[in-house]
Amino acid sequence: MESEARTAATAPLPFATWADVRQRRIEGVLDRTLASVPAIPAELTGAMRYAVLGGGKRMRPLLAYAAGELTQASPEAVDGVAAAVEMIHAYSLVHDDLPCMDDDVLRRGKPTCHVAYGEAMALLAGDALQAQAFAVLQSARLADPAAACRLLAQSAGAAGMAGGQAIDLLHVGKALALPALEVMHRMKTGALIRAAILLGAQCGRAVHGTEAALAGFARSIGLAFQVVDDVLDVEGSAASLGKTAGKDAASHKPTYVSLLGLDAAKAHAQALREEAQAALAPFGTRARRLHEIADWIVRRDH
Amino acid sequence: MESEARTAATAPLPFATWADVRQRRIEGVLDRTLASVPAIPAELTGAMRYAVLGGGKRMRPLLAYAAGELTQASPEAVDGVAAAVEMIHAYSLVHDDLPCMDDDVLRRGKPTCHVAYGEAMALLAGDALQAQAFAVLQSARLADPAAACRLLAQSAGAAGMAGGQAIDLLHVGKALALPALEVMHRMKTGALIRAAILLGAQCGRAVHGTEAALAGFARSIGLAFQVVDDVLDVEGSAASLGKTAGKDAASHKPTYVSLLGLDAAKAHAQALREEAQAALAPFGTRARRLHEIADWIVRRDH
Repeated sequence: MESEARTAATAPLPFATWADVRQRRIEGVLDRTLASVPAIPAELTGAMRYAVLGGGKRMRPLLAYAAGELTQASPEAVDGVAAAVEMIHAYSLVHDDLPCMDDDVLRRGKPTCHVAYGEAMALLAGDALQAQAFAVLQSARLADPAAACRLLAQSAGAAGMAGGQAIDLLHVGKALALPALEVMHRMKTGALIRAAILLGAQCGRAVHGTEAALAGFARSIGLAFQVVDDVLDVEGSAASLGKTAGKDAASHKPTYVSLLGLDAAKAHAQALREEAQAALAPFGTRARRLHEIADWIVRRDH
Repeated sequence: MESEARTAATAPLPFATWADVRQRRIEGVLDRTLASVPAIPAELTGAMRYAVLGGGKRMRPLLAYAAGELTQASPEAVDGVAAAVEMIHAYSLVHDDLPCMDDDVLRRGKPTCHVAYGEAMALLAGDALQAQAFAVLQSARLADPAAACRLLAQSAGAAGMAGGQAIDLLHVGKALALPALEVMHRMKTGALIRAAILLGAQCGRAVHGTEAALAGFARSIGLAFQVVDDVLDVEGSAASLGKTAGKDAASHKPTYVSLLGLDAAKAHAQALREEAQAALAPFGTRARRLHEIADWIVRRDH
């Protein structure tokens, strides 16, 4: 860590290196957190580990660490936030893949959790991961633990992720106008992305105006992420995505591509990235990593 | 409230009246908490309300209020804890009733949540209720909000309720010795009962030794509750239980009755009640309500 800090004082690490270091870091944090859960029964902890470890872009943890750097929080101070948002994300994927939801069999290039462990165990693993997220959150160096707990809860619950998934579910095969599609995505993915960023920043020394500017960044980058996801569902292959491609069209889900067309959707993603990066202007180079993550989100191919 | 307090100073309310007042109170708290969740989409909030309101013994909230009285916490101070533990309990019932788990169609005398709202919406309603529990917890007057968040998370997660359900699931149709059955129940129902009691007490002014004594009470009364549940599954009717009776035997689940026999199971419940009440001795009359709840748990017919 020290050698990294010394290097940073002269020339910052390339983004790919920074991200790699943080991705390895969060893998270790998640591994240790899950190892602290009693291994009885082994099937449940096995399913939890299967759902969380060894895969994923770790976008939400990277956002948490990057927002923490902006407020001079050490990675140690942010670890609990990074693990909490990733566990919420991982549990949502497990439940989303269940037969009564999207009924998907492939995730991150592996059989989905319920294919590997059975439906009932996957359901419980998701439930236990959500609970564990709230426990590990409190290991972060939070300015206000009660407010942080509320923010994570709201971003995961009916006003956030779960609510967005319910809207999604109710609109399979139905038309959804652009504003309604945006509301759905702000809840379904945007709320947790926002929580990752705001909670990460809350582990350091925030100055007046930080939260409002970061909320603006989160709003734009959250939508940009979703627009790119819709584009990749059309253009990507199962091999690069690690999940079933073309799923949205096949299930007649409204997407940015179906509403705007492919080219306009790509242009929309770029515009949202620029909007997100503009929101970072007040922070100067302290926002370097958030700026780079915005580029990475829009340029990714999976 | 004031008139109640004045009465209490002279002669305490009969238990049935006290419980009735608290049951109405928690119904109002749960109603207001759920009304604060955005009603978009209405199906999700509808399913959440269906799962939580208008039924149930509210045993966990009563335990929280009673433990709060012991440490001189006002009902207002405890409301958030009472609502949080009841929401965790309600979500677990929704998920437990799903076709991939117990596949039950009757709960509290009504169709189960997934029968009324569909499997996917019931799954999401359970997920959203768990998140909401952590939000409402922080409205309680907690001595240590971070520790309270961790305790609720541990009682709900792999080391508690979800872990106990996983053990339960893995032992359908299999033998389970008495010590293993106890471990399962301590996790599946005992952990959340313990959290209700300890968190309720944490809303007031606890003196040294309070937590240890209350943990002892919780340990015994949690098991007593489960033994009585097993007895009622054999002796009760669907009409009084509000759920399918005889389900345990039909699904070949190990129970206290199947392991001990009916009479010995009843005697075991009485012994556990006495053990629980003995743990309250240091508190004198301040533990009146906890003492009465212990009686109520063992004497109930549903």
